[in-house]
Amino acid sequence: MLEELKKQVYEANMLLPRYGLITFTWGNVSGIDEKTKLFVIKPSGVEYDLLTPDDMVVMDLNGNKVEGRYNPSSDTATHLELYKAFPQIGGVVHTHSSYATSFAQAGRDIPCYGTTHADYFYGDIPCLRCLTKDEIENAYEENTGHLIVNEFNRMNKDVVAVPACLCKNHGVFAWGKDCMEAVHNAVVVEEVAKMAMRTELINPDVKRAPQELQDKHYYRKHGANAYYGQNK
Amino acid sequence: MLEELKKQVYEANMLLPRYGLITFTWGNVSGIDEKTKLFVIKPSGVEYDLLTPDDMVVMDLNGNKVEGRYNPSSDTATHLELYKAFPQIGGVVHTHSSYATSFAQAGRDIPCYGTTHADYFYGDIPCLRCLTKDEIENAYEENTGHLIVNEFNRMNKDVVAVPACLCKNHGVFAWGKDCMEAVHNAVVVEEVAKMAMRTELINPDVKRAPQELQDKHYYRKHGANAYYGQNK
Amino acid sequence: MLEELKKQVYEANMLLPRYGLITFTWGNVSGIDEKTKLFVIKPSGVEYDLLTPDDMVVMDLNGNKVEGRYNPSSDTATHLELYKAFPQIGGVVHTHSSYATSFAQAGRDIPCYGTTHADYFYGDIPCLRCLTKDEIENAYEENTGHLIVNEFNRMNKDVVAVPACLCKNHGVFAWGKDCMEAVHNAVVVEEVAKMAMRTELINPDVKRAPQELQDKHYYRKHGANAYYGQNK
Amino acid sequence: MLEELKKQVYEANMLLPRYGLITFTWGNVSGIDEKTKLFVIKPSGVEYDLLTPDDMVVMDLNGNKVEGRYNPSSDTATHLELYKAFPQIGGVVHTHSSYATSFAQAGRDIPCYGTTHADYFYGDIPCLRCLTKDEIENAYEENTGHLIVNEFNRMNKDVVAVPACLCKNHGVFAWGKDCMEAVHNAVVVEEVAKMAMRTELINPDVKRAPQELQDKHYYRKHGANAYYGQNK
Repeated sequence: MLEELKKQVYEANMLLPRYGLITFTWGNVSGIDEKTKLFVIKPSGVEYDLLTPDDMVVMDLNGNKVEGRYNPSSDTATHLELYKAFPQIGGVVHTHSSYATSFAQAGRDIPCYGTTHADYFYGDIPCLRCLTKDEIENAYEENTGHLIVNEFNRMNKDVVAVPACLCKNHGVFAWGKDCMEAVHNAVVVEEVAKMAMRTELINPDVKRAPQELQDKHYYRKHGANAYYGQNK
Repeated sequence: MLEELKKQVYEANMLLPRYGLITFTWGNVSGIDEKTKLFVIKPSGVEYDLLTPDDMVVMDLNGNKVEGRYNPSSDTATHLELYKAFPQIGGVVHTHSSYATSFAQAGRDIPCYGTTHADYFYGDIPCLRCLTKDEIENAYEENTGHLIVNEFNRMNKDVVAVPACLCKNHGVFAWGKDCMEAVHNAVVVEEVAKMAMRTELINPDVKRAPQELQDKHYYRKHGANAYYGQNK
Repeated sequence: MLEELKKQVYEANMLLPRYGLITFTWGNVSGIDEKTKLFVIKPSGVEYDLLTPDDMVVMDLNGNKVEGRYNPSSDTATHLELYKAFPQIGGVVHTHSSYATSFAQAGRDIPCYGTTHADYFYGDIPCLRCLTKDEIENAYEENTGHLIVNEFNRMNKDVVAVPACLCKNHGVFAWGKDCMEAVHNAVVVEEVAKMAMRTELINPDVKRAPQELQDKHYYRKHGANAYYGQNK
Repeated sequence: MLEELKKQVYEANMLLPRYGLITFTWGNVSGIDEKTKLFVIKPSGVEYDLLTPDDMVVMDLNGNKVEGRYNPSSDTATHLELYKAFPQIGGVVHTHSSYATSFAQAGRDIPCYGTTHADYFYGDIPCLRCLTKDEIENAYEENTGHLIVNEFNRMNKDVVAVPACLCKNHGVFAWGKDCMEAVHNAVVVEEVAKMAMRTELINPDVKRAPQELQDKHYYRKHGANAYYGQNK
């Protein structure tokens, strides 16, 4: 079942080592089938060299395994909460990519210092608070999903305009209209985190990019008046 | 038309990922034909893996597309202004290469700390001001070109002796006698930005290289008395 | 003799350059045979390109060479002391990997700033004191082994829960249930050292990850209630 | 003539890009023939992809070209002075490798923070002063050679025990008993410079490694009592 999606999710997972986003098995990608509301996710802790499309696990939005010989990723419950809360999202990725995770460990948002960031993210990429002791000890992965959903709602952030966040002391979650775009956005998070750290080393008093420049670059690529690429 | 130039511009664009100057499609190279005053540029937002020489777009200096099935790079208007103002320039490249863009985001010139820099650039590589809100909102890309032209004229800098600049909160523009030399110079900008950042981390009180050393290395490679390489 | 183990130790040694943990011959891996209490180790100073499984040296726990045409690694006596003191250990690796060695040179433990670290190491990765002049001048490599054993005992650290340490002004020793897991842990040490340095650059006032989060991630992967991977 | 040496010098030059020590043609290696006192050096500014052993240039110690269709490296006069002053040296290499050159631009010696450094260099790697205006403007490359010779003599440093130095605001010169060892030492300079910078970022108050540890590691690999490797 869902052979096409399994193949795509497999390929999206294989991009993680290729783009240098992961070491060993420290990441996972999933994609959802809009019609059946079933989602496909990487199995937990299987080496990337050994993965095949058939190893992908099919889950429903109640957290039941529908197909697959392996356990799904230990982060499955987080993916699930994102799909339930945000129907705009077609793919989710989790990584511990080095620079972005360093921002997460530092407990800091990634500030928008330039157009590279503004081309993809409208405003800073937020670093969400740590879970409480209680949230950690009971249903940790599900609570990670709840936190992302609740914080984006609380901050009134659009998950399409800000397609990623950092989880404090942990790592990156990114998403997109499908699993390929989710991985693409995870690459961008890492690149802008790297440049943000370097920018601050070069000028500790640096300010964010002017709002009008952020607007220009974001809307040059997104929305009704976009003129970047071949779509128009 | 211009098959030879299209092939060269295609190859120059393909060097950007090979030299690690770009992620995804975050860059573009163009080259101009001296005789016809037509220039060839990469299409906008097409993946590098899929590009062929035939996908290159031919433009005239009034901004009209002369040939090509794709939209030209969204930065085409910037390239065009550089060709109009500086007939010495035969190729232009734009990147968001990581260290140089970090200097751009930090709003700082890249200081000349050594002979690696002086071998290619006479003096600091300038970081130009952000465009104003008005300049951004109307004809942004064209105004980026005007800014580079006006600032080089105002600073009385020779575009041959300083074949690159940073645009604040944005990225790098570099150029050369043809598109291959433009890419070569973009690589140098990234390397000297990387070393400049590290130099300041190693010694926060560092001073620029002595002027006589800068002169020696620059004129060892450029001008009537050059003796580097096989030209003399 | 021990052909299977020699092959595995050879392959584990070949992973060191592949994972970027070593330059030239600056590292070594060994593995012990549980039944015979003989261990197999890389020869000293032989180029990685020229190594074969047959070049591995077989040693007993009294430090006698049992088989092999080469001298064993100059760090053999350190490996030996670890095997004698900790029967839980099946493989040992020594590297000068860049970020972890920088922490060792700085004389600092690697603090646990996040879940990447907590997934593998329970608490900070300790940096042990320098040997004294006397310990250095007499039986240096053996004393390095004694120091690791004594310091883990003194700190009451479990070598299974903290499978690596730094030796001040020197480098990394890591271990595991076999030589492959030892190399795996050495890769993790380098990755978490890299992120710890960056984390502190991004936020000089950063605190360690909350203990409950460290516990959650460590015990998600280790011990009776582990649920990461395919083991349960 | 000197076909064997030309091949070796060619191969040593080709190692520079392979070890990531150079960008474009920013480096050169030479080797001397002990018997004829002729030395072989890379031509100036020829792309590495196009080089062959036959392109190497043969020079005598008076600075005359003895064989070769190309101009020799523009740094030839520096190599020549080193060969004249130090008959122990059989190969010389010059690079602008990134971390070491950053120390050179910062005007700082590379401090000996650990055993990685002490295994190859006895004490700090010195950063020599800039040449004076007069020394730069007249016979710059020859004066660079004189400076290295004079400063090593003044500091009473043994070129065998300290087989490299930094030239302020410029780059690295390294040497060895032959051109292969010279390149090997240039790799080490870059690695220890990288770790020294990181060490200081991790602990700004760091001290050098204890002298007894430096002695142990240096003499474990060098001199009459060496026991590293297969030589004894």
